[in-house]
Amino acid sequence: MTNTTQPGRAARRSARPGRRALILASAALITVAGTSIPAAAFAADGDLSTNGGAQRNSGDKTADLRASIVDGPAKNVILLIGDGMGDSEITIARNYAYGAAGELPGIDALPLTGQYTTYSLYKDGENKGKPDYVPDSAATGSAWATGTKTYDNAISVDIDGTPQQTLIEIAKANGLKTGNVSTAEIQDATPAVQAAHVAARSCYGPDSATCGADALEAGGLGSISEQILDTRADLTLGGGSASFTQTAKAGQWSGETLFAQAEDRGYQLVGDAAGLASLTAADQSEPVLGTFTPGNFPTRFAATTATVGGADEAPVTCQPNPDRLDTGLSLASLTNKAIDLLDTGDDKGFFLQVEGASIDKQDHAANTCGQIGETIDLDEAVQAALEFARADGNTMVIVTADHAHTSQIVDSTPPATLSTALTTADGTTMKVAYGTAAAGGSQQHTGSQLRIAGYGPGAAQVVGLTDQSDNFFTIANALQLDRNTAALSSGATATVSAGTVEPGASVTVTGFGFNGDRQLDATEAADSAAATALGSKDVITGGAAYELTAPEELGTQTVTLTGRQSGKTVQVQYTVAEAGTPTSTPSPSASAPAGVGTGDGSGSGTSSGGSGASALGATGAIVAPIAALSALLLAAGALLVLQRRRRHA
Amino acid sequence: MTNTTQPGRAARRSARPGRRALILASAALITVAGTSIPAAAFAADGDLSTNGGAQRNSGDKTADLRASIVDGPAKNVILLIGDGMGDSEITIARNYAYGAAGELPGIDALPLTGQYTTYSLYKDGENKGKPDYVPDSAATGSAWATGTKTYDNAISVDIDGTPQQTLIEIAKANGLKTGNVSTAEIQDATPAVQAAHVAARSCYGPDSATCGADALEAGGLGSISEQILDTRADLTLGGGSASFTQTAKAGQWSGETLFAQAEDRGYQLVGDAAGLASLTAADQSEPVLGTFTPGNFPTRFAATTATVGGADEAPVTCQPNPDRLDTGLSLASLTNKAIDLLDTGDDKGFFLQVEGASIDKQDHAANTCGQIGETIDLDEAVQAALEFARADGNTMVIVTADHAHTSQIVDSTPPATLSTALTTADGTTMKVAYGTAAAGGSQQHTGSQLRIAGYGPGAAQVVGLTDQSDNFFTIANALQLDRNTAALSSGATATVSAGTVEPGASVTVTGFGFNGDRQLDATEAADSAAATALGSKDVITGGAAYELTAPEELGTQTVTLTGRQSGKTVQVQYTVAEAGTPTSTPSPSASAPAGVGTGDGSGSGTSSGGSGASALGATGAIVAPIAALSALLLAAGALLVLQRRRRHA
Repeated sequence: MTNTTQPGRAARRSARPGRRALILASAALITVAGTSIPAAAFAADGDLSTNGGAQRNSGDKTADLRASIVDGPAKNVILLIGDGMGDSEITIARNYAYGAAGELPGIDALPLTGQYTTYSLYKDGENKGKPDYVPDSAATGSAWATGTKTYDNAISVDIDGTPQQTLIEIAKANGLKTGNVSTAEIQDATPAVQAAHVAARSCYGPDSATCGADALEAGGLGSISEQILDTRADLTLGGGSASFTQTAKAGQWSGETLFAQAEDRGYQLVGDAAGLASLTAADQSEPVLGTFTPGNFPTRFAATTATVGGADEAPVTCQPNPDRLDTGLSLASLTNKAIDLLDTGDDKGFFLQVEGASIDKQDHAANTCGQIGETIDLDEAVQAALEFARADGNTMVIVTADHAHTSQIVDSTPPATLSTALTTADGTTMKVAYGTAAAGGSQQHTGSQLRIAGYGPGAAQVVGLTDQSDNFFTIANALQLDRNTAALSSGATATVSAGTVEPGASVTVTGFGFNGDRQLDATEAADSAAATALGSKDVITGGAAYELTAPEELGTQTVTLTGRQSGKTVQVQYTVAEAGTPTSTPSPSASAPAGVGTGDGSGSGTSSGGSGASALGATGAIVAPIAALSALLLAAGALLVLQRRRRHA
Repeated sequence: MTNTTQPGRAARRSARPGRRALILASAALITVAGTSIPAAAFAADGDLSTNGGAQRNSGDKTADLRASIVDGPAKNVILLIGDGMGDSEITIARNYAYGAAGELPGIDALPLTGQYTTYSLYKDGENKGKPDYVPDSAATGSAWATGTKTYDNAISVDIDGTPQQTLIEIAKANGLKTGNVSTAEIQDATPAVQAAHVAARSCYGPDSATCGADALEAGGLGSISEQILDTRADLTLGGGSASFTQTAKAGQWSGETLFAQAEDRGYQLVGDAAGLASLTAADQSEPVLGTFTPGNFPTRFAATTATVGGADEAPVTCQPNPDRLDTGLSLASLTNKAIDLLDTGDDKGFFLQVEGASIDKQDHAANTCGQIGETIDLDEAVQAALEFARADGNTMVIVTADHAHTSQIVDSTPPATLSTALTTADGTTMKVAYGTAAAGGSQQHTGSQLRIAGYGPGAAQVVGLTDQSDNFFTIANALQLDRNTAALSSGATATVSAGTVEPGASVTVTGFGFNGDRQLDATEAADSAAATALGSKDVITGGAAYELTAPEELGTQTVTLTGRQSGKTVQVQYTVAEAGTPTSTPSPSASAPAGVGTGDGSGSGTSSGGSGASALGATGAIVAPIAALSALLLAAGALLVLQRRRRHA
């Protein structure tokens, strides 16, 4: 015996097969677990009792740790959330599936680790703005999605109800691709915080009674489902199709179902594994909306029922849930597909959020096998993310949770509360107790600080003690996102297809450079008449085109384009004249092309900034060179073709 | 608004006053808390609701994290254990004393963080050696003290009952100073694991009924208290004086109280703050045994009683406990004194373990204020350790716990289990629930993985997922300890004061170089007679001296010295001859001085190795040069003087 460190057993297992093999191995384990005690491949193998036999470190890891600290920026970020996945839930899943000395091959593999606080804030009353120690998934998700702490129930609005920009919105404005994946209804709090701003998390669809002022018909931004369509992430995958079958009550798509609206707006809609597998692209022209269940995904394992005294009964092994979705719709499969679609190689990178939602939901239900299966599912998604990140070399992966939860591993069966006993991969019995609610009630979230773990450029930010809201800045800064998204529309311009047209002729007005916006609103006005609304358009890579018909009335028409999010306003004009009157086509010049408006008062254009834009310094007038203008006109044509195809598909 | 990171409020608070100011500030806070809501100095100050207002990171900390990763070795290690201090218990204390957005100035300040697993092993039956998911403090402490996982109830013996060397034992054998501090009875599991090896943790003293084969009278190593005296750390501070008033039932000090024995063996005994303050040294010649209470220390805060439905009652603030010990005996004070005594500047460094014991004990008792006060106490000890480590620059500090526990922060009062509501430093209400035992019962440990945090050289080992047993190797390797302590006695030698003496003359036999041993046992035998036991001696810096009286019988006497821990045997001989017979004094030569035995068969010495030593390769014969031998003889004189003074003090 010498004074060198013995390689630990756990560490010796660290030479791992690739991702696919692991997922298969894990699936095999679970299949075995369905009928008997899981094979001991990952579990205690009998030498844990020797000196050093339980070590996980395999020697001095100082150099490895140093090597794992990589300066940002990162090109891509994948954020994986285990809803309700506190340290206890992680340990329960590890013990069950891999044994206490084993490791979750994804979750446990991240090299940089820390803890973070998750408290929310009181919305009103004498405690307004003070910490609320046990948060919900809405407040916690809002914290990392926006960097702003808020109240339980809030979806990315602050305690005063003001919308806070989300990572997906900001990443998109910065030209990154974006994705949002969950095993929950996609309107559930954790995915919703990246795509919507509502005061009450249950405002899922136009039929939701809780939308209040957020409803479109009340002048709000609309339900979560409607805002998901507005946010237009490149890819949105989850459950929750039911809300999309509801019908809009106001706005441009009033009377249409949200699915019809989505199709109308260019979404690729998929609802099963084959549909998902067939996708070859997910982008702003044809974003993907995959909803695979009406509500939440079925769990991986069949439910177990905890009872008072239950852990004194014969221990169970977790059984496969016959209702589980196709393996092509496992969280790992969704994650892999999302990465494949978002990683287009030569773009600005992507931000992807992935949620394993039902760890929380099954912990609420005191369903031990349920929460274990979902933790394993998330772990496989983490493996997928890590495999990509390791190969890519420029991707940060963060794995954490939103809040702690009830389940505890106990030694003896608690007398008054619910419990279940399980036979683990070690072949021994683990007792899990739920003590915060009565049978049939919903077990509570708890207020403990949580594990956060990271890999890749910028991930040093997670080490030590941080707050959940730090995670927003960790990600935004790693991706070098300009959070002043209004400024990203400051150079917006517009073109009109002809300077002078005959009455009834087609005219196309196209806005460009509205990078900080997700929608444009437009109006048209004759010289002295009131403006007419032209409706809204989705901004696609900064642009949107309006196809107009020139009025019968002769004179000057002014078209005003307003970025909905930035408040940026751009105007262009065209002249309606009788046939035979000399017409002009836009003839770009080096000074101020007649048909090109800017937001800064050059030529005939005028501009006004919204509240967001008002914080900006003035930018110089945009003078489009010929080549650039030609490109704009070509793009305008493409936008028109795209929009026509959709409206009339 | 720009895309730079706003410094968070929490981070802005990070410019801190020095330790003394902090401790005073904290004490002041608690005084305030005793009568009213704590001042908001550390708590939410109203801007948590702004974007970035709750951040703890103050910018890109990548460089800081890199800088915090320091290669070993470390000269000193301070290990601070919060017994039962899971992430939930940390959060409860932070919320109460500093607010949810505040930070525990010690615990939260360590830069390197991770999680570790704490499971124990089954001792016997069909599950022997397999994981037991909810450990006790004995098994968990044994894991980090020895690197060997064991069963609940075991104090540094493996599942087969074989003693495993502890960090204090190994550090001492390597010439480091050692200390062991706790607010519990010093015989309690966490301190005991560093100083004793017993099968049942309740074997506190000679009167304990559970000692079984470990009792001295049964031929064992003795009770924990007796082994504490044998282990002879330089410094041992805690509660548990009661066991030292018991009387040894066998062995060299049979019939004496353990306190009398301690005094006899050279210990400095202190029992109050003044006595502790008066100490100016703690070393192997005069180690410190400070026991300040018969049992565990009283807690900082008066107890609160959780009841079913209790969290629906008016929230409480924690009140000072009138029985709390003198502030000179706070855990921070003990830690500071221990550091002062162990850090002697020019030695080989020290290993110090400090336990905040009653976080666990009060969690068992569902006493929220109790556990909070003990967590704050530990935090202040951590501040003390960090202040020393920062100034020293060569000290690793590790802060962790032994196992998770029951207390949970909940949103609503659980229907069937115990709970308490408290008014925190934020001025809001925190509800804490205890759901694993009935009223009056002992709330259970839980099996969750735990936080471990580190600072200083070698602390990178704690990042990521490790096991509790890794902590042993983290510390042993940082200190570059040679764990083969038997080998540290391989060069042992002995001298005899005269080669030939008259019958009845005084003869001194002195062993040296028994660095791997804590006690020597000796026998003396005439040529053909049976050996006579000479009793045992504490090894002090490798040496021990026996003062003998030459027998009346003429002939050769052989004295055999055996290292109790190493098994290393050294023999020396002297001749008893009538007066007038030419005598010889030891005359060192370059070949084999007659009076100097070695363990390797040179001269007249013979040796045999115990099981520990048998693993060693043979070392060459030690041939003492004149200068070295002179030094040995001088040292022998000093040892004799020291031992005489003690026996007859």
